[in-house]
Amino acid sequence: MRFFSDNAAPVHPKVMQAIADANQVDTAYDGDRLSAQLDARFSELFGCDVAVLWVATGTAANCLALTSLCQPHQGIICHREAHIEVDECGAPGFYTGGAKLMLVDGEGAKVAPETVRDLLGNIRDDVHQVQAAALSITNATEYGLVYTPHEVAALSALCKRQGLGLHMDGARFANAVASLGRHPADVSVHAGVDVLSFGFAKNGGMGAEALVYFDPGQAAAARYRRKRAGHLQSKGRFLAAQLLVMLDDDLWLENARAANAAAKIIADAAPKRLMHKVQANEIFIRLTADEAASLREQGFDFYDWGEGAARLVTSWHHTEKDVTPLAAAITAL
Amino acid sequence: MRFFSDNAAPVHPKVMQAIADANQVDTAYDGDRLSAQLDARFSELFGCDVAVLWVATGTAANCLALTSLCQPHQGIICHREAHIEVDECGAPGFYTGGAKLMLVDGEGAKVAPETVRDLLGNIRDDVHQVQAAALSITNATEYGLVYTPHEVAALSALCKRQGLGLHMDGARFANAVASLGRHPADVSVHAGVDVLSFGFAKNGGMGAEALVYFDPGQAAAARYRRKRAGHLQSKGRFLAAQLLVMLDDDLWLENARAANAAAKIIADAAPKRLMHKVQANEIFIRLTADEAASLREQGFDFYDWGEGAARLVTSWHHTEKDVTPLAAAITAL
Amino acid sequence: MRFFSDNAAPVHPKVMQAIADANQVDTAYDGDRLSAQLDARFSELFGCDVAVLWVATGTAANCLALTSLCQPHQGIICHREAHIEVDECGAPGFYTGGAKLMLVDGEGAKVAPETVRDLLGNIRDDVHQVQAAALSITNATEYGLVYTPHEVAALSALCKRQGLGLHMDGARFANAVASLGRHPADVSVHAGVDVLSFGFAKNGGMGAEALVYFDPGQAAAARYRRKRAGHLQSKGRFLAAQLLVMLDDDLWLENARAANAAAKIIADAAPKRLMHKVQANEIFIRLTADEAASLREQGFDFYDWGEGAARLVTSWHHTEKDVTPLAAAITAL
Amino acid sequence: MRFFSDNAAPVHPKVMQAIADANQVDTAYDGDRLSAQLDARFSELFGCDVAVLWVATGTAANCLALTSLCQPHQGIICHREAHIEVDECGAPGFYTGGAKLMLVDGEGAKVAPETVRDLLGNIRDDVHQVQAAALSITNATEYGLVYTPHEVAALSALCKRQGLGLHMDGARFANAVASLGRHPADVSVHAGVDVLSFGFAKNGGMGAEALVYFDPGQAAAARYRRKRAGHLQSKGRFLAAQLLVMLDDDLWLENARAANAAAKIIADAAPKRLMHKVQANEIFIRLTADEAASLREQGFDFYDWGEGAARLVTSWHHTEKDVTPLAAAITAL
Repeated sequence: MRFFSDNAAPVHPKVMQAIADANQVDTAYDGDRLSAQLDARFSELFGCDVAVLWVATGTAANCLALTSLCQPHQGIICHREAHIEVDECGAPGFYTGGAKLMLVDGEGAKVAPETVRDLLGNIRDDVHQVQAAALSITNATEYGLVYTPHEVAALSALCKRQGLGLHMDGARFANAVASLGRHPADVSVHAGVDVLSFGFAKNGGMGAEALVYFDPGQAAAARYRRKRAGHLQSKGRFLAAQLLVMLDDDLWLENARAANAAAKIIADAAPKRLMHKVQANEIFIRLTADEAASLREQGFDFYDWGEGAARLVTSWHHTEKDVTPLAAAITAL
Repeated sequence: MRFFSDNAAPVHPKVMQAIADANQVDTAYDGDRLSAQLDARFSELFGCDVAVLWVATGTAANCLALTSLCQPHQGIICHREAHIEVDECGAPGFYTGGAKLMLVDGEGAKVAPETVRDLLGNIRDDVHQVQAAALSITNATEYGLVYTPHEVAALSALCKRQGLGLHMDGARFANAVASLGRHPADVSVHAGVDVLSFGFAKNGGMGAEALVYFDPGQAAAARYRRKRAGHLQSKGRFLAAQLLVMLDDDLWLENARAANAAAKIIADAAPKRLMHKVQANEIFIRLTADEAASLREQGFDFYDWGEGAARLVTSWHHTEKDVTPLAAAITAL
Repeated sequence: MRFFSDNAAPVHPKVMQAIADANQVDTAYDGDRLSAQLDARFSELFGCDVAVLWVATGTAANCLALTSLCQPHQGIICHREAHIEVDECGAPGFYTGGAKLMLVDGEGAKVAPETVRDLLGNIRDDVHQVQAAALSITNATEYGLVYTPHEVAALSALCKRQGLGLHMDGARFANAVASLGRHPADVSVHAGVDVLSFGFAKNGGMGAEALVYFDPGQAAAARYRRKRAGHLQSKGRFLAAQLLVMLDDDLWLENARAANAAAKIIADAAPKRLMHKVQANEIFIRLTADEAASLREQGFDFYDWGEGAARLVTSWHHTEKDVTPLAAAITAL
Repeated sequence: MRFFSDNAAPVHPKVMQAIADANQVDTAYDGDRLSAQLDARFSELFGCDVAVLWVATGTAANCLALTSLCQPHQGIICHREAHIEVDECGAPGFYTGGAKLMLVDGEGAKVAPETVRDLLGNIRDDVHQVQAAALSITNATEYGLVYTPHEVAALSALCKRQGLGLHMDGARFANAVASLGRHPADVSVHAGVDVLSFGFAKNGGMGAEALVYFDPGQAAAARYRRKRAGHLQSKGRFLAAQLLVMLDDDLWLENARAANAAAKIIADAAPKRLMHKVQANEIFIRLTADEAASLREQGFDFYDWGEGAARLVTSWHHTEKDVTPLAAAITAL
């Protein structure tokens, strides 16, 4: 049983079916019937007018979002371990034309208002230094922690005061929402997020993310930038289909709950090994090399996280039955 | 019956099946079993060592190819009506960091050595003018014309003499090869092409193109640039699956032959209306507004091409039975 | 006597003196006493509030101006022979992050509203094509023609209707104003120009141009971009000094008048050879290779302009006495 | 007496004279007689073949150097307080097309091989992470410390092993060489530096730096990039003149020695206040707000360096007579 990435999980059968159903002659690019429904369906979900673009990857979603909030000569504040800083091969620099990522620290890859305030306080207000234009936070974070609506609102209030836009990298937004048990709007638009990368690929999708603009007017330029980045797929109906079926009966939420529940079972089996609270679908545990080898011998696959640590990620398809043996194996170490 | 774009056609059932079959737990990104087969399978096809990257769109394939051949301060020669110039929203400028497209004319969007030589002759050899580093040609062209191996070789010889790289935008490479009845290597690597955007999306695929490096060493940097452009999909196995099934039993060629054959039936019905020879799967015909309206009333959809003209595109799924009524309707006008 | 470029002319003695006078301990970058006077002095000149940045070159001025008017995914309309297209080694692509130059034709490198309208009419209003955001015109043009206030206003009116910004490359703005005998505001801000590259280097300066924002609010971002482009010189007082002394007693106008007068003497000597009207300080004449050789033997230096043609440029330091022999020599050919 | 920046110092009289002498009709851009001498004169200085470009600013020199060593998708290692990271408004991001600065720590802004090795060791060798292509060090550092030839060679050896280029930001290279009492080649080309930004503006120049390529072949592309960045001044003879006169009789070294000697006098007066060793022309001292106010009342100007600290910079024009009163005033605090 593999726990090394939610990207490695299979696509949910309903998504596969929706893709099969979308295979009809239709208009190319985003002119098809399915893409045309995105704005309305996501507006319904969030309870406000939004504009939505499909893109194939979280990196594309994040970086297009950043270009909406930041000019090339400006900067974007993010956590030192944010995906945009660590795992996207410099994509933000490419998309923004060389804007600067400005790094803050924080437990569990969470950004706090104080650290942002400190960073801003250290930027001289002169043309020799890059001035910040946006803050990007990740929910759930790279370590599986979840920002509450209240925490996001505190960051957003600071952003408003400082003239910064607020982007949320929601590669695991569904897991965060499921974890919080709150309405998705509560931790996004109501909390002051301007643009959301709403991830589906890690949550049972095949290759489609929703780039959600809570100010729909900002989406117009993004549509050009999407094309210019080579992300306007000619058969966009297959991406739209994935997003739409995910919204049907809240499949996105159901999948995320399943993943979170599986993570909880594992976490509960190893309370003393946990390096971070488990609030979503990622579990970081201390594990010696011998212990890791033992688990692997028993058929459990995961990601080493430096020396003496491991990352396990659960996904929509991990059932209680799947994870119970792993939990038992960890307990037995 | 729709003839306005091969992008609007459905995905071939074998491709759909291959996608369904690929839905297993596997390694993320391009670490999966299917992606791992690409180099070998395409090397077999071309009869030489190649390195291949999947990407979702032709724009991404073209632009990544151009970054391999051209530094930001250099230029890329292409036809004035090339897709990279006209239809990609400035993507080459984005990907290359502002390299210049240098435009030449030519009947049917074909580039001839003389026009390239003239253009090069008009560039002053000083730092005030952008110097060309590459030539990009499209086969089949935007007007459905096909470069022969001999024609490509003549361009390639010029490129070699002038120190230019040669890129082929093969969004409809399959149609060109089918039209020529030659081995795919004859019109690419043997004719001196350095990098080929080998299109599958217009030819029955869903969302996967092959970026083929005939000098495999050039692909290493391209893999970083693909990631950086947000084109390294996390479930890349679904793109690899599309390319692999297309190579099985030469499905790509079979599909292209079907599309070309359908185009020929239409072309043969309207010899006097043809604006360009029909060598692949695009037909450009003179058509008055009334005639266009009449065809549309009869249920035929297509693309207006300025005043008094229309573009019709056939695809893999157009059978003789599908196009015969259109041919008859055009004859009857 | 050299007539091949106004860039090759010496620096005016008053400018040299102003540079010498500026050599005191002062604040670095643009924090010095001289730089601080620029906005007020140019505002006085134009009779309205402007913000002014010094930069060392016309290319930097032009390109910074373009970044104020155009996002990376947009386009800038200019003449096919504009300096930004032909002679800046792709600098606009670099500065704008890959925005597209959209070329129009026109006699003597002049842009007319009709050609702009035609170009705009040919851009499809969809994301596949770059949309224009600005028009850049050169006054005087690359062929020494001068736009009248009326002509600029006609272009500006079109720009306003179409939502385009208007930039004027005024590398020889002084010559244009001198030629028109009008107030500098008449052919710039009153005629609807948004940003002006006001050239001094070709007009007796050493290495300073004024980037003039008629909407002062736009200059704030440009100050960051200037720094980011490496154009915020640490001893900016020497650039400011050049601009300020040029404004004293209208030295800029006096110099341009001298250059234009010298050009007129030459033009009057060769009415039948003229390829373009001579309205500023450039003279394009038909000249056989033998004639060119003969002139050169007599000590006159100039620039060949393709086969059978030559470009002669006069400058502030060419007196009647200097050019009369050249005029006579041309007449005598 | 002002000690807040060597940029605020006057231009050396010999440089002013050389500028005055250069004011003749000559070829434009870098085609003039003076620019033509640069390669030979600097080759003589360094005792090996070098290619040299003048540019107006250190930022331009640094960033052009970086583009020679680093592709857009790669990274450049530098100190967390390096000028390119902290004081150039993101210019490296602009020039390189979004390459990443990778930061290391180190006392006094010095980079040590171990920190570079650690950083490299933490980069995963996969396409998700930016790979380093170059190291940039500053000599003298932002805190006035000097790398010895041995220290540079150790870094260079590491670079060679790792395939990294080595750039030296020598805005105060002259001060470093003067401090070391070694040949300039010893701490640059012989120590393995690939490209050197050799500063003159802070050392008595007006607005000219030398970008020195120890591999002359790399300079060809840089000449295009210089033009493209708007840094090819039309009257380049005035920049060349500055560099040439600086080499005459080693004026650059004489000036740097004077600045260093002045700094030493101040440093010797305040041994207990020093925050860093004083090896070049910068002095960082602990100073309370009251003490700072007191010095300022006595007519000494300097830069506050956060709370309780100050930066004083000496320049070529500070004589013993100038600095002795400051030294006394500090002692008397």
